[in-house]
Amino acid sequence: MKVESSDGETGTVISLPPAVFPTAKAPATGGESEREEEELFVPPLNFAMVDNGVFRSGFPSFANFSFLQSLGIRSIVYLCPEPYPEANVEFLKANGIGLYQFAIEGTQHRTGCLVGCLRRLQRWCLSSIFDEYQRFAAAKARVSDQRFIELFDVSSLKHFPLSCSCSNR
Amino acid sequence: MKVESSDGETGTVISLPPAVFPTAKAPATGGESEREEEELFVPPLNFAMVDNGVFRSGFPSFANFSFLQSLGIRSIVYLCPEPYPEANVEFLKANGIGLYQFAIEGTQHRTGCLVGCLRRLQRWCLSSIFDEYQRFAAAKARVSDQRFIELFDVSSLKHFPLSCSCSNR
Repeated sequence: MKVESSDGETGTVISLPPAVFPTAKAPATGGESEREEEELFVPPLNFAMVDNGVFRSGFPSFANFSFLQSLGIRSIVYLCPEPYPEANVEFLKANGIGLYQFAIEGTQHRTGCLVGCLRRLQRWCLSSIFDEYQRFAAAKARVSDQRFIELFDVSSLKHFPLSCSCSNR
Repeated sequence: MKVESSDGETGTVISLPPAVFPTAKAPATGGESEREEEELFVPPLNFAMVDNGVFRSGFPSFANFSFLQSLGIRSIVYLCPEPYPEANVEFLKANGIGLYQFAIEGTQHRTGCLVGCLRRLQRWCLSSIFDEYQRFAAAKARVSDQRFIELFDVSSLKHFPLSCSCSNR
């Protein structure tokens, strides 16, 4: 299944609404040995922060769940046509995380396309958008995806804020 | 000069203290043609968001100044031994941005090392830290840098918050 592939992003954007969430784990207060025994976080493949409260990553597995909890995310946007695996659905339910599935076909790098269109809205120049796309797509980079980003019509969304990087909403 | 090189990151981390900053540009309110004529933003090479209010990038040039303004940054951490160029100093002065220079020698990818050490503090597993390091270092990736990140002693900083991704401070 595509969603089980381990080659990076398969179409998941994790978004955090603009609100304050408690940390899942409090900072360590014990001694050094206690801290050393603490679990390490395992971010999903290709994990990165896109903007305030918006993250991107490959499809998360069980190993990533505690990291996702630490982010305090409230919703996940899933871009693959395949059904969301039951174990992940259970994790979302247990943590009050909403799932929004948009089955996108015909692109090699769905998350990269979505982030690229967001950058168009933020008025990034195309060379910077493509640089970011290629950094995450690596071997999956496709000219057709970049053409899609370039031709994405932002005119209907012209009242979208130009950038949200500077606001700590 | 290294700081003028165009091959990606040369040691700049741009940080935004946890406070609310106004956007440098208000959203477009005019017609479509007006919006189309608006300037596009040119982020510095290898620009990315590291965490809330913390950004990374290669050395910024004049073309990047309006983008940096839009972020509302308050300080820049500069990791190269070379003097900061006068044009950039003027830009910082005009925008009330502080400059903090730490002349780091003997690493191929200074910003990547610094971000890697931050990820150690955030308790990311090493495979994820190295994956992120390599994504930005590309051809400049060095095993010695990754060894530095691995051996970085976080015990003296054990009271550092494990993760700040979830807080919108």
